[in-house]
Amino acid sequence: MPKHVKKWFIFCLTILCSTTSIGVFAKIDNAKIKSLQQMSLESSLSYEIVESLTVEVGPRLPGSPADLKTVAWAEAKFKALNYDKIYKEPVEIPVWTRGAASAEITAPFPQPIVITALGGSVATPDEGIEAEIVRFDNIEQLQQADSKLVEGKIVFIDPITERHRTGKGYGKVVGARSKGAVESAKKGALAVVIRSIGTDSDRFAHTGMMRYSDDTIKIPAAAMSVPDANQVNAMLDRGQPVRIKMNLSPASKGVASSYNVIGEITGSTYPDEIILLGAHHDSWDEGTGALDDGAGVGIVMATGALIKKHSVQPKRTIRVVLYAAEEIGLIGGKAYAKAHEKELDKHRFALESDFGAGLIWRLDTRVNPAALEDMKNIARMLEPLGIEMGHNNAGGGPDISMLPGYGVPVINLQQDGSDYFDYHHTPNDTLDKIDPAKIAQNTTAWVTFAVMAAEVDAQLRPIPERK
Amino acid sequence: MPKHVKKWFIFCLTILCSTTSIGVFAKIDNAKIKSLQQMSLESSLSYEIVESLTVEVGPRLPGSPADLKTVAWAEAKFKALNYDKIYKEPVEIPVWTRGAASAEITAPFPQPIVITALGGSVATPDEGIEAEIVRFDNIEQLQQADSKLVEGKIVFIDPITERHRTGKGYGKVVGARSKGAVESAKKGALAVVIRSIGTDSDRFAHTGMMRYSDDTIKIPAAAMSVPDANQVNAMLDRGQPVRIKMNLSPASKGVASSYNVIGEITGSTYPDEIILLGAHHDSWDEGTGALDDGAGVGIVMATGALIKKHSVQPKRTIRVVLYAAEEIGLIGGKAYAKAHEKELDKHRFALESDFGAGLIWRLDTRVNPAALEDMKNIARMLEPLGIEMGHNNAGGGPDISMLPGYGVPVINLQQDGSDYFDYHHTPNDTLDKIDPAKIAQNTTAWVTFAVMAAEVDAQLRPIPERK
Repeated sequence: MPKHVKKWFIFCLTILCSTTSIGVFAKIDNAKIKSLQQMSLESSLSYEIVESLTVEVGPRLPGSPADLKTVAWAEAKFKALNYDKIYKEPVEIPVWTRGAASAEITAPFPQPIVITALGGSVATPDEGIEAEIVRFDNIEQLQQADSKLVEGKIVFIDPITERHRTGKGYGKVVGARSKGAVESAKKGALAVVIRSIGTDSDRFAHTGMMRYSDDTIKIPAAAMSVPDANQVNAMLDRGQPVRIKMNLSPASKGVASSYNVIGEITGSTYPDEIILLGAHHDSWDEGTGALDDGAGVGIVMATGALIKKHSVQPKRTIRVVLYAAEEIGLIGGKAYAKAHEKELDKHRFALESDFGAGLIWRLDTRVNPAALEDMKNIARMLEPLGIEMGHNNAGGGPDISMLPGYGVPVINLQQDGSDYFDYHHTPNDTLDKIDPAKIAQNTTAWVTFAVMAAEVDAQLRPIPERK
Repeated sequence: MPKHVKKWFIFCLTILCSTTSIGVFAKIDNAKIKSLQQMSLESSLSYEIVESLTVEVGPRLPGSPADLKTVAWAEAKFKALNYDKIYKEPVEIPVWTRGAASAEITAPFPQPIVITALGGSVATPDEGIEAEIVRFDNIEQLQQADSKLVEGKIVFIDPITERHRTGKGYGKVVGARSKGAVESAKKGALAVVIRSIGTDSDRFAHTGMMRYSDDTIKIPAAAMSVPDANQVNAMLDRGQPVRIKMNLSPASKGVASSYNVIGEITGSTYPDEIILLGAHHDSWDEGTGALDDGAGVGIVMATGALIKKHSVQPKRTIRVVLYAAEEIGLIGGKAYAKAHEKELDKHRFALESDFGAGLIWRLDTRVNPAALEDMKNIARMLEPLGIEMGHNNAGGGPDISMLPGYGVPVINLQQDGSDYFDYHHTPNDTLDKIDPAKIAQNTTAWVTFAVMAAEVDAQLRPIPERK
């Protein structure tokens, strides 16, 4: 152990021995934290990790050859970053390939439009599907519609995604994507195409997962770009029926193996107690998944690595989990919860970074209210980074969304997602969309949280019900 | 003639009779101009015209079925706008179709990239072309390179397009696109692919015309998106050879007819003297050509229409020319110059709008310096629109670029093109990129210039040589 760290440890131990468990934390060595923060702010490690992943692997669709390349990349990267323990855990995933997608307006004003298949969609017949469209503002309006309006048509669901720092506009409209095919099929539609769930006005269609149900037929499902949705509306506004022809050739191809890849920085005092830092290593296939979720991978991998590099041994184990196959249904997240069910009571905190690389601006928690004072202590150290204390009603993140059900306290280091849905699930999700200074701020917040959270001895459970 | 216009005409005539030709102009009725400007600023006509063109026709590649639809649309629109005289003039154009384009990096890190064929390119063999790339900063570096470096490879020309209000970054690098295939073929390359000539960082490849020469073989030519060019560079930076496979299926398909479409507002005093307002009605095929050059079409068509609607009969004829096939080699512009050669001495001014729909900020001229005082008078009326007087070294615009050779004075109502090359020649050139308020400012400047220019009696020739 380097001399300065040893001194710090001795100092901390002195403090620890002289206080109660809740009180301890308030007296953690702020100077050490600040020096870690400074080092992290000056480091480009998280950016370099995303660069490495997006350049050396690129798009990483679950079940594709690139998926296993990602797993190998992740293991090698953890090793290069000097993690204490590196392992992987198998998951089984359905294989789906996108194929080609094309579409055109055939009447009243023929012209091509930009579409993409939604994840999991079946193909159209080879000759495509051509029909009049019937437009709905949103999924709710479709659900209320008379089947007679829908039968034999292509349903066009047309919700506008509102821009918001928290990304809350997404949740309001994503039902059109996930449930559109089932609701359309119920009413006899031939296919469904939605306005992209996105805040941009670029000529990219946003893909993303959709679902079928066992009791309705599977109809093809696609998204069109926002300018194309506007174009269709301009034609409908002229009072004329609009016909669309679409060709999709996705295919389901059995199952494949992938892995959650895990790296740990072993805790000094309580090595079996875990601070879980998550991100997902898969991505959609049309971009290089820089924001979704290369950024998260970079942030969480760099967090452990920078702590280790700065010769800080956290009191509890920092476990970095790179989940497989998040995009196609949280497969890695669910598998982790199952595989680690007996160990989940040792999970002190779980966090996930899966919302791009915008500046973190708020710390949200879900812990026993008695531990909130400790959270506020952490928030005080985050304040110089522009981060405020938030609410105690955090959701965590997609891959850890099942953990609060097991009583695991979750945290959100809430990012500014104002432009996240400009790029989300499009070919335009590429490295150039990441600002190196912003991802360094993210990493610094994660380093700060992780190292301080590992010191917290307070009783964190039971966590409150989510409002 | 409405009463208020009649009064204005009588007033103007009084002034005209009492002054010399240069002096006249200073005494034009500013109140009338201002009322025209107010009406124009409040009008959404130019925006509505672009909307109509981009929705009802959409992409308009020269020689495609949409090309003749555009011609019919233009004739009908001129008629609806109540132009005095409407006619069309045939041009013969080579037909080229884009086909499909795909490419991938095959080594060292296989992944798809986004490319598009350059206009006029030949196809690759059906199985594509796969080879190592050799990178050059720009066309000049390629021209100086040893053939041994290039033989049997795919040339990658990688110039950065600088963002500038005047768009001057484009001219500096567009040689990579226009001359890349010839220069690469000379040195034995199999194909050429360039970094898109564009200022954006979106996953769109920018197309645009390229040329072959008779004494070199024709090799396929494509552009890749800026993020993909960055990706290739990231691999080259790792010191590894980069291999690309590209498939292009464009085809040349003989010749077709199209038309320059012309509408006139007849001059009152000198109907045979012409103020030419130009734009081009064709577009590339991947976007809807809203900025290039739907905006220009909207601005110039609205200019004549608003003047007419406001019951102003200009002293000289305002001739609005919608040129065919600009994108593939100024075919309409050249045909117009030839067809009207004997009449060009009656062309008092020529202007073209072909740089998007950004705010106009400067009036550049190329007239006999003795007439500059008249130009400054016009500039004074443009000042409230945020437009300053510029230089007397104007180029005009692509389709009128040959007219100064015949002595025709040309004008540039210089637009802010800061973001023009973000969208230029991409699928992303769609209506949503036009700000209705900005295009109304453009139209108002054009209305002001056209109506005032029609009054100018000064000797405008000879025009100075261009510096």
